[in-house]
Amino acid sequence: MSQTDVDAGTFEFDQATAVRRVDATDGRSTYDMDVDAGFTVGPKPNGGYLLACAARAVGEALAAAGSSHRDALAATTHYLWAPDPGPATVEVEVLRVGRGASQARAVITQGERRCVDATFTMGTLPDTDDPATWTSLAPVQLPPIEDCIRIPASREGAPFTVSIMDRSALHMDPATMTWALSQRTGRGELRGWISFADGRPSDALGLLFFLDAFPPATFDISPSGWVPTLSLTTYLRCLPAPGPLRVSMRAQVVAGGRVDEVCEIWDSADRLVGQATQLAAVRFDEATPVTPFPG
Amino acid sequence: MSQTDVDAGTFEFDQATAVRRVDATDGRSTYDMDVDAGFTVGPKPNGGYLLACAARAVGEALAAAGSSHRDALAATTHYLWAPDPGPATVEVEVLRVGRGASQARAVITQGERRCVDATFTMGTLPDTDDPATWTSLAPVQLPPIEDCIRIPASREGAPFTVSIMDRSALHMDPATMTWALSQRTGRGELRGWISFADGRPSDALGLLFFLDAFPPATFDISPSGWVPTLSLTTYLRCLPAPGPLRVSMRAQVVAGGRVDEVCEIWDSADRLVGQATQLAAVRFDEATPVTPFPG
Repeated sequence: MSQTDVDAGTFEFDQATAVRRVDATDGRSTYDMDVDAGFTVGPKPNGGYLLACAARAVGEALAAAGSSHRDALAATTHYLWAPDPGPATVEVEVLRVGRGASQARAVITQGERRCVDATFTMGTLPDTDDPATWTSLAPVQLPPIEDCIRIPASREGAPFTVSIMDRSALHMDPATMTWALSQRTGRGELRGWISFADGRPSDALGLLFFLDAFPPATFDISPSGWVPTLSLTTYLRCLPAPGPLRVSMRAQVVAGGRVDEVCEIWDSADRLVGQATQLAAVRFDEATPVTPFPG
Repeated sequence: MSQTDVDAGTFEFDQATAVRRVDATDGRSTYDMDVDAGFTVGPKPNGGYLLACAARAVGEALAAAGSSHRDALAATTHYLWAPDPGPATVEVEVLRVGRGASQARAVITQGERRCVDATFTMGTLPDTDDPATWTSLAPVQLPPIEDCIRIPASREGAPFTVSIMDRSALHMDPATMTWALSQRTGRGELRGWISFADGRPSDALGLLFFLDAFPPATFDISPSGWVPTLSLTTYLRCLPAPGPLRVSMRAQVVAGGRVDEVCEIWDSADRLVGQATQLAAVRFDEATPVTPFPG
């Protein structure tokens, strides 16, 4: 299902990512948007949600430029400043309209502040019945969804509300949740099922949000809090088949106060539908020893 | 060693990535450069080399803006059009000068054509004696360099010259080179040693080139030719210790005519110094069956 097939009036995600064109001149289009208070981690919006807003404006700008490219094959985002919920602007520059792929850049600003700078290579994803030609990756293995633990938006003792957990239904594999009991495995991996909480079908646009909707995998290494993303790269590989998606989020290296994390999303047909890598700033609690990777 | 410590006059890479500021107004600086005919794959410049040119212009623009951030912590590049060797322009826009990190965008154009669009989160890398806080990755295992095979720039029957193999000395693990004898393992991984052929020390800028200097890992899956990169993301994690670097380049999923590849570079102190992920267009020869991933 492509992002244009979902009825934009019905679901939370479509309302929260809505953009309205207010100006278009000389290859640049300006859109108004509202940073939604329901797609936040504490007081600030989630990075994947902001990426989806930018992607939606880019899709509309490419359509206005006569391109049929609607899917964010590769999106690369740098986060400069976290906006607050409320009005913001997306400025889109179409860089190139091509035959197989087109490129565009989107900048989200709030007031005088540049907040998000994203560049997209857009194209058309393979359909849901098109298998991979070759793969070296195995799908994430998970217990049945009813044996997993739904992550709540707020819990006793938590410093803030994670409202994206009311928008997405994230059911975590209990084996990767022992950090909630201060028992870290040191593997630095979280796994679980994800879907929209209000029943919105998953599509290309939704994947951009899901690829950054998991808690930081560093929770399994040391108490770190939510880590601010410096740069996020997402690749979409094919349109997701219906049903909940399986997600793996894992940390690779922590050095110099930064961590890289890899996210993979698999659909019900065992196909890799989306993947992401991000570099984030991380500060571990010095009072708690880091749990080393086992083995 | 930071990129500014290497004498720019002496080595091939520094001459080939030289940029000259010709204009600066209103947060934007314009640099002239020459796309070097010696950093090519066939007739066209290598993507990592172009990224290094852009990074050098960004480093100079940030210095002019009073920032001390010289290292490309995260660089994300989209390739729109392959320029030819010869004059080109780099336009740099400093997006934000921060305390811990700064952001900038660089666009390489040739004539009227926009060729490369890159965005950088710049900062300062940990020094060579600063170990990782935590890691789940094991360094690439390689035979001694003298038991590896130096990849030549040209060989009998090859369709074109790969001149970057005269700039870098790439010594490939023979176990990952059986594709040269049409014996593909299907693992989709290439491993080897890399350094500058003229003895230039490795540094932050050099890593950007090395992260895209390996042949495509798809050589080990099916005859594919060199694959054109759509988007490249590089993370630098720490400054490399002296000595040849170890590189792993592996394909993960081929689907819809696109492949993602992951590159890791390790230094002589067993630290991950750089990593990259790229999405590239790939077309397999339909006459040759794809070698599946073993196991």
